[in-house]
Amino acid sequence: MDAVPTPAITIEQVLEICERELPFALQLGLSIERLAPGEVTVRLPYRQDFVRPGGTVAGPMIMTLADFAMFVAVMSHIGPQVMAVTSSLNCNFLRRPQPADLLGHARILKLGRRLAYGEVSIFSEGEDEAAPAAHVTATYSIPPAD
Amino acid sequence: MDAVPTPAITIEQVLEICERELPFALQLGLSIERLAPGEVTVRLPYRQDFVRPGGTVAGPMIMTLADFAMFVAVMSHIGPQVMAVTSSLNCNFLRRPQPADLLGHARILKLGRRLAYGEVSIFSEGEDEAAPAAHVTATYSIPPAD
Amino acid sequence: MDAVPTPAITIEQVLEICERELPFALQLGLSIERLAPGEVTVRLPYRQDFVRPGGTVAGPMIMTLADFAMFVAVMSHIGPQVMAVTSSLNCNFLRRPQPADLLGHARILKLGRRLAYGEVSIFSEGEDEAAPAAHVTATYSIPPAD
Amino acid sequence: MDAVPTPAITIEQVLEICERELPFALQLGLSIERLAPGEVTVRLPYRQDFVRPGGTVAGPMIMTLADFAMFVAVMSHIGPQVMAVTSSLNCNFLRRPQPADLLGHARILKLGRRLAYGEVSIFSEGEDEAAPAAHVTATYSIPPAD
Repeated sequence: MDAVPTPAITIEQVLEICERELPFALQLGLSIERLAPGEVTVRLPYRQDFVRPGGTVAGPMIMTLADFAMFVAVMSHIGPQVMAVTSSLNCNFLRRPQPADLLGHARILKLGRRLAYGEVSIFSEGEDEAAPAAHVTATYSIPPAD
Repeated sequence: MDAVPTPAITIEQVLEICERELPFALQLGLSIERLAPGEVTVRLPYRQDFVRPGGTVAGPMIMTLADFAMFVAVMSHIGPQVMAVTSSLNCNFLRRPQPADLLGHARILKLGRRLAYGEVSIFSEGEDEAAPAAHVTATYSIPPAD
Repeated sequence: MDAVPTPAITIEQVLEICERELPFALQLGLSIERLAPGEVTVRLPYRQDFVRPGGTVAGPMIMTLADFAMFVAVMSHIGPQVMAVTSSLNCNFLRRPQPADLLGHARILKLGRRLAYGEVSIFSEGEDEAAPAAHVTATYSIPPAD
Repeated sequence: MDAVPTPAITIEQVLEICERELPFALQLGLSIERLAPGEVTVRLPYRQDFVRPGGTVAGPMIMTLADFAMFVAVMSHIGPQVMAVTSSLNCNFLRRPQPADLLGHARILKLGRRLAYGEVSIFSEGEDEAAPAAHVTATYSIPPAD
């Protein structure tokens, strides 16, 4: 997988897709920190209205961050194919995140013809990725080439 | 579990919690259709900005609906304990939902002292629940009584 | 899915497959209690060497039972296609099973062209299926028709 | 977690537990390759009766290997507490394993007071762990100290 030296999509292309077709990603303020083939880091800014009782970032925001990071990681291999869709996502919440921006670091573990599988570590900015706030695995369905 | 004839929380209490502490739930327009002990149906209204490429409701909206339905189903057993938090959520996307409101039907399968576990069927209004758009299982961590 | 009145495989055909190609299923004593289209009940006999510390049936036996029940449920729709393989399995252990035979009741929730998805409730014989010892969801990959 | 320089259990202690209380682990031939605090590698020998149609190691064997590797990884932190039990296990099958011994490399990502969470990469001996045959995440319930 690491034979490809540059990702099959650029940060600008992802932004265009968001503007054209993923309005909620823009509304949440999701942005890409780092983009390499099969490996992506996405940032979710801290906002008061993302917080749940107990003062931590709500679970759905964390899952949205993870799903978006996987989506971009898949496109970093297959290019801007927006019809790639999540087929399953499993999120484990491990530690209460700090009141800070969250980073989601996605890595593709398997790129098949029909399915891609990867994992995402979610951690507060400034915290250790080895002690993540959440850990996600997800499978994406890849549209048939034609 | 079915020994309790009325739920341990009312729809009004859930609304108050949302207004006070879950602003994003209100922003999305989530509402409760039906509330029984351990069994809840929640509605997510159809909105153009929830849609992803391909014209279907985006995965994160479906997971948010499922997580909220489980949260209310847990409180239907333990009362308005807002510190109950998701410890894991597993979502399988099965069919592209129609451009319509989505319903999430949550059922608690295990209520322990520390953990609750249940499943949520997600389906478009007017569709058959037996052929769901998504199927979710989730575990909630219950705060210690004191 | 329920349009087909009889399953696409018989109990005898499953037994032949086990004898020919799934020796461990026979060694464990797995047997089919009930076989309908998309719905199957499988029995795992209680044996002392399946027990883990605490006197309960070990997790791997429960997952083996669930995986086999799903395999048969998939074949009840698509016929004796032994190349159908598990692509993911998620098991939640909910209650310590009794020292008794275990039953696994599998139901297909989605039968696609490439993937089948279903759930399995695991419960001790004589116990209530609504309070299962374990709950499993699984996806099977269906071999391409040719 | 890495403050502890030596694991809280030895390979000999794990063997004794297997002999006394986990007969099926011995029957399968599971053995420990490497044991460090929170990180364990376990070997499942290749055997003809573990194979499923298509010539690959059957899914239940892979899940058994993963569950056992997690069990030992948990005990590498908390010592020989055999009442630690799996509370959930999620297995994704990614590539058909070779006809060879399988290795399961488990790493603890979160050690709490009540729950431990980790991941296991499963790969054929001689293959690249970065391209695993299966990827597992699992949660263990830790017995209360008394």
